[in-house]
Amino acid sequence: MAEEKLTSRSENYSDWYNELVIKAELADYSPVRGCMVVRPYGWSLWENIQAALDRRFKETGHTNATFPLLIPKSFLEKEKEHVEGFSPELAVVTIGGGEELEEPLVVRPTSETIIGYMYSKWVKSWRDLPILINQWGNVVRWEMRTKLFLRTSEFFWQEGHTAHATEQEAREETLRMLDVYADFAINEAAVPVIKGVKSETEKFAGAVMSTTIEAMMGDTKALQSGTSHFLGQNFAKAFEIQFSDKNNELQYAWTTSWGLSTRMIGAIIMTHGDDKGLVLPPRLAPIQVVMVPIYKNDEEKSKVMPIADGIFSQLKNAGMRVKMDGREEVTPGYKYNDWEMRGVPLRLEIGPKDVEKNSVALARRDVPGKEGKVFVSQEGIVATVQTLLTDIQAGMLAKATAFRDSNMFDPKDFNELVEVVQKGWAVSHWCESKECESKVKESTKASTRCIPLDQTESQGSCIVCGKPSKRKVIFGKSY
Amino acid sequence: MAEEKLTSRSENYSDWYNELVIKAELADYSPVRGCMVVRPYGWSLWENIQAALDRRFKETGHTNATFPLLIPKSFLEKEKEHVEGFSPELAVVTIGGGEELEEPLVVRPTSETIIGYMYSKWVKSWRDLPILINQWGNVVRWEMRTKLFLRTSEFFWQEGHTAHATEQEAREETLRMLDVYADFAINEAAVPVIKGVKSETEKFAGAVMSTTIEAMMGDTKALQSGTSHFLGQNFAKAFEIQFSDKNNELQYAWTTSWGLSTRMIGAIIMTHGDDKGLVLPPRLAPIQVVMVPIYKNDEEKSKVMPIADGIFSQLKNAGMRVKMDGREEVTPGYKYNDWEMRGVPLRLEIGPKDVEKNSVALARRDVPGKEGKVFVSQEGIVATVQTLLTDIQAGMLAKATAFRDSNMFDPKDFNELVEVVQKGWAVSHWCESKECESKVKESTKASTRCIPLDQTESQGSCIVCGKPSKRKVIFGKSY
Repeated sequence: MAEEKLTSRSENYSDWYNELVIKAELADYSPVRGCMVVRPYGWSLWENIQAALDRRFKETGHTNATFPLLIPKSFLEKEKEHVEGFSPELAVVTIGGGEELEEPLVVRPTSETIIGYMYSKWVKSWRDLPILINQWGNVVRWEMRTKLFLRTSEFFWQEGHTAHATEQEAREETLRMLDVYADFAINEAAVPVIKGVKSETEKFAGAVMSTTIEAMMGDTKALQSGTSHFLGQNFAKAFEIQFSDKNNELQYAWTTSWGLSTRMIGAIIMTHGDDKGLVLPPRLAPIQVVMVPIYKNDEEKSKVMPIADGIFSQLKNAGMRVKMDGREEVTPGYKYNDWEMRGVPLRLEIGPKDVEKNSVALARRDVPGKEGKVFVSQEGIVATVQTLLTDIQAGMLAKATAFRDSNMFDPKDFNELVEVVQKGWAVSHWCESKECESKVKESTKASTRCIPLDQTESQGSCIVCGKPSKRKVIFGKSY
Repeated sequence: MAEEKLTSRSENYSDWYNELVIKAELADYSPVRGCMVVRPYGWSLWENIQAALDRRFKETGHTNATFPLLIPKSFLEKEKEHVEGFSPELAVVTIGGGEELEEPLVVRPTSETIIGYMYSKWVKSWRDLPILINQWGNVVRWEMRTKLFLRTSEFFWQEGHTAHATEQEAREETLRMLDVYADFAINEAAVPVIKGVKSETEKFAGAVMSTTIEAMMGDTKALQSGTSHFLGQNFAKAFEIQFSDKNNELQYAWTTSWGLSTRMIGAIIMTHGDDKGLVLPPRLAPIQVVMVPIYKNDEEKSKVMPIADGIFSQLKNAGMRVKMDGREEVTPGYKYNDWEMRGVPLRLEIGPKDVEKNSVALARRDVPGKEGKVFVSQEGIVATVQTLLTDIQAGMLAKATAFRDSNMFDPKDFNELVEVVQKGWAVSHWCESKECESKVKESTKASTRCIPLDQTESQGSCIVCGKPSKRKVIFGKSY
């Protein structure tokens, strides 16, 4: 419980984050190297994220399925870049049922290979395409330096895997799912992401093209928050996903994959959190409204509680996620701090004076202090609360967008680039060469985050080497 | 697709089952020993099972969370019976990030140990109890002889883990969750299970008492379909889950665990399936109503489709899971077989004559042939379909219950017991000794399934040894 204060963000951003995750009871460290426990409050947030995404996946024609956790090691070796990318991170099962296995099995780090194998069994004709499947599950990538939600050896995610008859369809699917991610991030999580294409260096191991949604955290670092990959025919060739086309000729399929993970919880924490704790967007918050009844004795209690219970029922029946904090062993002030730490968007206070005046107090989590507190009538409380929650959701997005925009810079030259990436993102022309990319990284620790998709091509020159460039890229430090 | 017929149940029940799972596209074999792929249709059924259970878990005060997939091997060794039970079935990770691990990690076969460890961190005082957490996930138990859904190395389930201040509370929780399982099985899956207590031989490794819901399959074998365990203080002592009670004295907590898995899909298949394929209960069916429009040419199509589309919208808007099968490359007859294989509870046919007569044909999956087909008015179609789905759900439960009851016997003596367990279950007095239990097993291959909870104690004598007995047990062959 929130008895001690958090380290402030300005003091030590990393400590602030680590403490917040524990104190808000989102997650906990486990005795297993690099693996986390997601506690009920954190998992409930993830369930809301899952529901919001799953609805969008189904609306775009996808269904869920599940594929084995364990993958023969030889499968990974069938796609050259893929195995190079993932080999150093594998957890390997060598013993099963008391005996050494003939072939080691890896705990899936991602499922392109095993799913590719199954698709090759299922696809015979163009009529079997497209296949549009998503899987919710856990994956393991061995990590040495871990941070809860951002980088853990086991994490939780969804991975979509689709197979198509034509390149164009697969490219459209890649961008469709990127749009789904951006729509989710912006309109549910109030995280104003930028959609873009990853550089050759930063793309997924085995992809032809990787796209990403990039978000700016409260310390101005970037967080890659979801990715959608066009895999070309790389995995189709490795796993022989072939079909007879309408002319009865054998063709390789075109595939995509796309994933979003519990990392998104890290994005929400670092986009919205403040020195008092978490601030959750109403659309995803496990608890949208917490009610704190206030009374000093049984007489006051007998006046307050019937009214409070009535309001609770009204809000609950209107479909809101509302909680009554009826604890008697702690003070109202303690409760305020506690729910502020957990980021509940709206607090409803009701005491004896409110009962007399037919009013309640409503305190917004996103606007601290008196400024965020209003006294409203009990009449029409459902509509009042609904309007406020909508305002909070919109206000959080606007605030995060303004913060991001005020920390994006357009440096004039390389020297200014080096300077601005210490305090935010640089949006600059770039020749798309690895040399210029690594020169920036070596000088500043900033990497290319993405080439934004929503830009009009313009004539410019690379901020590093001066060669002609048509598109701008975002440079920034990242998690 | 359902082009070839299934082996009939009477010919070979096991082949019938295996073929049905593949042809109905519920699941598929994978290239990984003993692991299955659950295909979209099967996973959609599992999602409906999950939703029906999850609602019940939340109504009884539980929340979801997640704990690590990988567990230090030493954890399992802390509870003696637990490690003896699970050791032979473990998959062991010995390599992580390219290096041999100092301590091997097992892929969880069940999570009492890792969860026990975390609870010992979280529980300090009686105020922290009870903890009521459920986890949805995958587990691995190495299997040599596998059968899709019934016995696979990786399977999908939920596992509830609770900790309580008193023995009584924990015992009540154990039975509460058994009731939840029984309520789910009977009222959602239409599987008439019997609640009971497992014998000492059959109980969970580490439990004080195991309870179970047992279902009778179409071949009269029993299937253990869900279990709820009272763990006493065994795991609390192994993992030091201790709390200060109200008198400020240190006490060990009392714990329970309970699980239901994708095995339930096997129970549904073998309770309701027939020689044409799957028969799904409407409350869990991914598709409740499939519509087959019938026309021979474009003129007929232009008459039929607007009416069919209108009915589709009405059913969909009423919240039903309805599918329009508009395929033009296959015949209506092919479609009938196809959806019968997949067990869709109700088929709605509409052709040019129906349009003229303002009618549609409705065919029940659970009542084959003309007997299950009615012609009804298009007026009030939503109410008609809803009533039929309710009838089907009730009819399936009644049919399965009658089948079970007609295959439960009350043998007079041991010789008759040996005879009746070849064709069904025996419900007999038993002295609860291991000797008599194993004598039955050796003579008949039938084991004790459970001591039914819903029985009034009666004076009797053990059907094997003749010693006095107060309670009856079910003997039966099982999966």
